[in-house]
Amino acid sequence: MSTATAANYKEIIDNAIKAIHARTFYAQYPESPKAYGEDAPKAGLDIFNNQLGKPFNGLLQQNPTAWVGEEVSPYTGKKLGITYPVFDTETLIVRAGRAFTAWKNLSVELRAEILVDALERIKNRFFEIAYATHHTTGQSFVMSFQASGPHASDRALEALAMGYEELNRFPQNITWEKPMGKASVVLQKQFKPVPKGISLAIGCSTFPTWNTVPGLFASLITGNSVIVKPHPKSIYAIAIVVAEIQNALQAKGVDANVVQLAVDGSDKLITKELAEHPLVKLIDYTGGSVFGSYIEALPGKTTFTEKAGVNSVILDSVTDLKPVVQNLSFAVSLYSGQMCTAPQNFFIPAGGIKQGDTVIPYEEVKKALVDAIGGIANHPQMGPGTLGAIQNPLTVKRVNSVKDLDATVLLEPKSIANSEFPEARTCSPIVLEVDAKDRGVYEEELFGPIVLIIKTKDTTQSIELAKHMAEKHGAITFSAYTTDETIANIITEELESVFAPVSLNLTGMIWVNQHAGFSDFHVTGGNPAGNASFTNPEYVNKRFVWVGHRRVS
Amino acid sequence: MSTATAANYKEIIDNAIKAIHARTFYAQYPESPKAYGEDAPKAGLDIFNNQLGKPFNGLLQQNPTAWVGEEVSPYTGKKLGITYPVFDTETLIVRAGRAFTAWKNLSVELRAEILVDALERIKNRFFEIAYATHHTTGQSFVMSFQASGPHASDRALEALAMGYEELNRFPQNITWEKPMGKASVVLQKQFKPVPKGISLAIGCSTFPTWNTVPGLFASLITGNSVIVKPHPKSIYAIAIVVAEIQNALQAKGVDANVVQLAVDGSDKLITKELAEHPLVKLIDYTGGSVFGSYIEALPGKTTFTEKAGVNSVILDSVTDLKPVVQNLSFAVSLYSGQMCTAPQNFFIPAGGIKQGDTVIPYEEVKKALVDAIGGIANHPQMGPGTLGAIQNPLTVKRVNSVKDLDATVLLEPKSIANSEFPEARTCSPIVLEVDAKDRGVYEEELFGPIVLIIKTKDTTQSIELAKHMAEKHGAITFSAYTTDETIANIITEELESVFAPVSLNLTGMIWVNQHAGFSDFHVTGGNPAGNASFTNPEYVNKRFVWVGHRRVS
Repeated sequence: MSTATAANYKEIIDNAIKAIHARTFYAQYPESPKAYGEDAPKAGLDIFNNQLGKPFNGLLQQNPTAWVGEEVSPYTGKKLGITYPVFDTETLIVRAGRAFTAWKNLSVELRAEILVDALERIKNRFFEIAYATHHTTGQSFVMSFQASGPHASDRALEALAMGYEELNRFPQNITWEKPMGKASVVLQKQFKPVPKGISLAIGCSTFPTWNTVPGLFASLITGNSVIVKPHPKSIYAIAIVVAEIQNALQAKGVDANVVQLAVDGSDKLITKELAEHPLVKLIDYTGGSVFGSYIEALPGKTTFTEKAGVNSVILDSVTDLKPVVQNLSFAVSLYSGQMCTAPQNFFIPAGGIKQGDTVIPYEEVKKALVDAIGGIANHPQMGPGTLGAIQNPLTVKRVNSVKDLDATVLLEPKSIANSEFPEARTCSPIVLEVDAKDRGVYEEELFGPIVLIIKTKDTTQSIELAKHMAEKHGAITFSAYTTDETIANIITEELESVFAPVSLNLTGMIWVNQHAGFSDFHVTGGNPAGNASFTNPEYVNKRFVWVGHRRVS
Repeated sequence: MSTATAANYKEIIDNAIKAIHARTFYAQYPESPKAYGEDAPKAGLDIFNNQLGKPFNGLLQQNPTAWVGEEVSPYTGKKLGITYPVFDTETLIVRAGRAFTAWKNLSVELRAEILVDALERIKNRFFEIAYATHHTTGQSFVMSFQASGPHASDRALEALAMGYEELNRFPQNITWEKPMGKASVVLQKQFKPVPKGISLAIGCSTFPTWNTVPGLFASLITGNSVIVKPHPKSIYAIAIVVAEIQNALQAKGVDANVVQLAVDGSDKLITKELAEHPLVKLIDYTGGSVFGSYIEALPGKTTFTEKAGVNSVILDSVTDLKPVVQNLSFAVSLYSGQMCTAPQNFFIPAGGIKQGDTVIPYEEVKKALVDAIGGIANHPQMGPGTLGAIQNPLTVKRVNSVKDLDATVLLEPKSIANSEFPEARTCSPIVLEVDAKDRGVYEEELFGPIVLIIKTKDTTQSIELAKHMAEKHGAITFSAYTTDETIANIITEELESVFAPVSLNLTGMIWVNQHAGFSDFHVTGGNPAGNASFTNPEYVNKRFVWVGHRRVS
């Protein structure tokens, strides 16, 4: 088992800090499964298969009150049968409090070394994590591998490195000497970044590690202890992460309860109990807007939320429509629109869009988009691998229920045959058409494979509506296609004024859904889609308090 | 009139950034009045005298609806007779919104140049500001000069420099190239710190510039426009500051409404109207806890508050008691305890305190402290200059009403004769004695010259109570005297766990009340005394949002 040594943890963090500042492409953990050796996939699958139907014994948390587990594979429809230890809220809090006292007094260097070691240990389990993610979220295997493995660990390292930089921003000890005429006043000063306390990380069902590890590592490096509360339907992948952090802690003789897994069942959820506990000072949350707004409003807590947004696309003018609709159809199909970054609302002017010197009529643009989306869904190889499966049966219900909206159905949703998993819960995107005036139809997040084409008067109206959506309902991504530099500037100014990032003219092997670690800020924190951002300085420096002591020497 | 040039604004900011990181002694603006030339005091006084009884015409804000002013000198008891222009809330907001649009689009460099120029212009009016402060707050002249002049401007520069550093933390434009086997994906990325919008700075009556300029300059450098709402009884000093920022804006052809003074009268306060306005996104506040908590709870606002705290002193053991009581008596007497940093609660063990190998009995410690406090008040030269005058008549009432508390009066408050100003509203400190069990008496901030000596079982109880006070009611400063390194460490650990900074064994020409720019964090932001800190990174980076745009090149 690889462990970080004093020599290489520094190098890993220094490189990450450089990458954060450069914001050019960087990855500590390669996204290609091939980079991890020929035997790794099979070994991971064997471990995964061996875990099915058994208690998850990897955690260093003693004396559970019960064992529960209710994960079901969206691919097989079968229960995974894995159970996890359950603990009372008070037990979790007491252990977190005790561990906090020890953890906060460790040097930043030792904390950093342990956390880099944890990432190296997690790396050794990327394939098991991939299968765990695949069979809980419904993501395709490759996406499961990349999102929950290397991409998540890169995001964790990014948060860790940002925290490390902030913690070292001011000197620990200095002599302050103020000249006072002939004499001077001398004070010894000490500057300490004091962690806030117990941190709670609330996970979601679709991205159990990617969305959880940034806050987890940000809280840990800044000296807080963390209770990780996963979604009851998506525990396995993050349980492995927690187990490996605990192993890294134990290897250095540190109380493993610095991080704890807090599992609950759907029949007795403990999230609110944990979140409202007076000793919980920090909360990271990913999930729906209603619960997210409840978290944000809790008094006396520092919160970091990623909620839902209404992501828009504006089509104004193109060099060539074909690669545009290819790119967009893939963006909405990837993991069946279950990404928080997936586009939902497509604003197209009634007068059509320019392509070079010609105008492509609205109906043609619409048809090209619908055909491209249908094309992916119907493609026997590409379809199942791109769409994956649907994590939550309610998402399929939602897709069917939107047919009742006052909108024209342009493309019917359907099940996608998956030769590997005949029982997979699948659903191709539904495409609806509405007029710009029918705001009630498109003015909310419709989570899942749901696409709305909105016919606008012109691009000016498209911009106005997209901006309004982002300001009122939040936006995590925003995409625009225009060949007119003036319009590009207007779009950028308008959307950034409501803190939505603009992706312009994306075609080829890059999609608006993707936010790269060390470069793209994921969620800006400035609109209702969430109050935090992976990973800006605020994401780490709100987790501790600078306290300056002074003494006469 | 001196103005910053492109060459020297950079140097001033670079030096300030270096100072912030070094945290050793630094001052851009010397605190000695002598540094500003022999003629400066007289010139400032002449301008002050000439302003009395007239409208303040220095602002570049057009078409007021009325002119109001109700400032009264605590030294003469007379109205200053200065009136200030009044504007409707909607007018202020519309002008701030229009100015914001222009201001946010200026380069960080140009904003920085204008703001350094403003500081240089303010410097030329330090003596007028000093007289304005003297005759509105009741501070002694020297304190008025230092606090509202050089110290305030150093704090403003600190916030400005911290903002400048944060805004330049990430590159504006980069090329991102991701290797994808034989090909690669290339994106042009732009990272923009987008300001939040209109900022409101709510001032207090006792430190009209020192407490207002850090938030004001932090908001301005990060691209927000600011409405400054001073306390109706303490306008003149900050009006000069606003006027000079407006002059610096105008000199560069920028809309002067980037900063506006919003004056109201006690009969028609507009603070809530402004604070609750949906376009106001940022609020800086200094003042009482009740209103501060209301500000913090406003939905959808980013707030920076400094409220009240209960500052404690623990006496455990000393090398020599005399310099200790000298230091402490000065700390409570300075500006008659009207500093948010002044100590209030003195915890002394019933068994007395060690001095070297001997023990000084409790009664002797108490007497030494009371004598020292009385000594300053009764000293004909030192008394008036140290105590200054009482800003608010309610403070004198409070001092008298605390006699009704269930506590022993050890030192009666009295008026202090001021030969220069026979009508000055003065009040020497009252000293009360209570037992540790009588928490109800000392468990709140008693603003003004009120000192409580609390008899504890031992230092362990002193620590426990001081920690409890800081955690529950907030603490801006905390002072301890001990010669025992183990106890010093326990005190430091316990108090920092509730985010109170510890000043240990201060004697001589340094007092716990003083927080130096570029070195001491003023308020930690971690306990109920306030949610913000002059000037940690959070103080500036919460004022803008990082937005990353991407485009295919």
